[in-house]
Amino acid sequence: MKNGSIASIGEFGLIDIIKNQILNSKTEKNVTVGLGDDSFCFKLGKQSLCVTKDLLIENVHFKKEWIMPQTLGQKAIEVNVSDIAAMGNVKPKYTFIGLGVPSTTSEIFIKNLYKGFKKICDKYQILIAGGDTVRADKIVISVTIIGVVCNDGIVKRSGANAGDLIGITNTFGDAGGGVELLCKYGKKHKYTKYERFLISKQNSPKARLHEAWKISKYLTSLTDASDGLYVSIELLTKNFCKGADICIDKIPISTALKRVFKDSQKQLNFMLLGAEDYELVFTVPASEAKILKKLVPQISYIGEVNLSNKVRYFYNGKEQKIQYLGYKHF
Amino acid sequence: MKNGSIASIGEFGLIDIIKNQILNSKTEKNVTVGLGDDSFCFKLGKQSLCVTKDLLIENVHFKKEWIMPQTLGQKAIEVNVSDIAAMGNVKPKYTFIGLGVPSTTSEIFIKNLYKGFKKICDKYQILIAGGDTVRADKIVISVTIIGVVCNDGIVKRSGANAGDLIGITNTFGDAGGGVELLCKYGKKHKYTKYERFLISKQNSPKARLHEAWKISKYLTSLTDASDGLYVSIELLTKNFCKGADICIDKIPISTALKRVFKDSQKQLNFMLLGAEDYELVFTVPASEAKILKKLVPQISYIGEVNLSNKVRYFYNGKEQKIQYLGYKHF
Repeated sequence: MKNGSIASIGEFGLIDIIKNQILNSKTEKNVTVGLGDDSFCFKLGKQSLCVTKDLLIENVHFKKEWIMPQTLGQKAIEVNVSDIAAMGNVKPKYTFIGLGVPSTTSEIFIKNLYKGFKKICDKYQILIAGGDTVRADKIVISVTIIGVVCNDGIVKRSGANAGDLIGITNTFGDAGGGVELLCKYGKKHKYTKYERFLISKQNSPKARLHEAWKISKYLTSLTDASDGLYVSIELLTKNFCKGADICIDKIPISTALKRVFKDSQKQLNFMLLGAEDYELVFTVPASEAKILKKLVPQISYIGEVNLSNKVRYFYNGKEQKIQYLGYKHF
Repeated sequence: MKNGSIASIGEFGLIDIIKNQILNSKTEKNVTVGLGDDSFCFKLGKQSLCVTKDLLIENVHFKKEWIMPQTLGQKAIEVNVSDIAAMGNVKPKYTFIGLGVPSTTSEIFIKNLYKGFKKICDKYQILIAGGDTVRADKIVISVTIIGVVCNDGIVKRSGANAGDLIGITNTFGDAGGGVELLCKYGKKHKYTKYERFLISKQNSPKARLHEAWKISKYLTSLTDASDGLYVSIELLTKNFCKGADICIDKIPISTALKRVFKDSQKQLNFMLLGAEDYELVFTVPASEAKILKKLVPQISYIGEVNLSNKVRYFYNGKEQKIQYLGYKHF
């Protein structure tokens, strides 16, 4: 057996190792959604619960210089709520926050971080129910959210059928543009209005929870675009031996992205490969597409599912090759 | 407002800040145990759930040089199960493991770590249900366990009455002795049989889950001794304006601790102030004490609850002053 590093096997190699280690774990008839979706769901009595967990690590997921502590606290909750939204009709109820901080951290930093946690928890009526606070060299935020499934409303990543339309909410690419600006100029640079908009999309994402509630009962599959639109489409199609044809020109991008990054290739990269947009990506039978658009006007349909096991991208009817250069965790 | 560091306000100062920030959070009639106990409990339909969460951080909670990866994985689950045991009659069901690792970490390390997680999850019939794996500078392990409460069997930290006996399981001080040896000689030293026993008590704690199940219905209060016996006794008494008289000579210590550390003052320090013994500490009406001892012969009664708001320690009938020098997180 090769004793390589994780850097050499990559994130997906690592996930394979982990899956192999925990396979044959006790399986349970009460588990309705297991490993490999945005959240985990199980039945308890007559109800179903949904659990999500994310780790945010300083200098990997955020830099203290780029984001205010309250904004960081808000983001930590929003991105977890986004994982709940990605399951359909689920009401987030309780959160548990594990926090690791260096002993040199200031009181005011902690206060503002928790102000951020609380603000977003209040917004979604989530109770901060517990947690753990420990010393660490770098800031570590571990958020667990437990939600209650409403009306059997779970929508998995699997379920897309040939002929279904692929839908998304809002615009794509802003968060990726924002992080590029922060990398280049830092937080203190004098930014234009449009640049500030992109940075706010990176630092202050909004989970599409209410949108998910409205549309979930019509969907055949659903995820959120935390790792970029390209990855999300693969998750809903190729992961289940399906394919898709995508019309790039139907993917909306913001005025800000167009104004700040004028190179259209760059816009395309942010739109498809940029991470952290936290928009919904879903499939829906074509017959239901109009109803959804009425319920959530910010929906766009960008392509169609097929049986090809291949995702093709078209611009003005001409196929475009997309090279995946998304975020590499390891 | 003083803008001090956490080091200057200490762990309890930090917890106060956090509590103040999240007070006025939405409270809920379904919450049966909130912040400030070993786990958090809430009702869902006719059932009650119990949730625990712990962060383990490299060089704070463990050193890679001191513990094998499989043993580390086992410990991460056991200490969380111990928090579940500390709630009484609760069956741990699902776990979620967040893992942060440097990209230089070897495949074999990850495999063995997960082998450890799985071994203990199988032992307690817990399903590894999900998680998150990310890059980090140092190893971070965040474990969440969800358990199902059986027969309304929750025992809180509050509830001790004057006249109740204070009981503990097994011996105290071994884990503290073990960590002192590791600090002094490292892992590769040629240790004696007794020294190896103490190190194994530090590296391979066992949650007292089955013991908790057997005795919970008789108890008035319960916790586990993760931060040392002294702290646990305060948590069950002074925290709720109660006091206790403790007979130090009734607290059992192992032959190994006596043989390895011959100085009786040192033994006393490990026994009362050493962390990570993960034994149960509880109170019980004196009338039930005999039944409990029959159910779990490893129980010792070490003192009695009173209304004094003060915990006093006695050795051979003579009061001893104990200076709290327990582990300082910050």
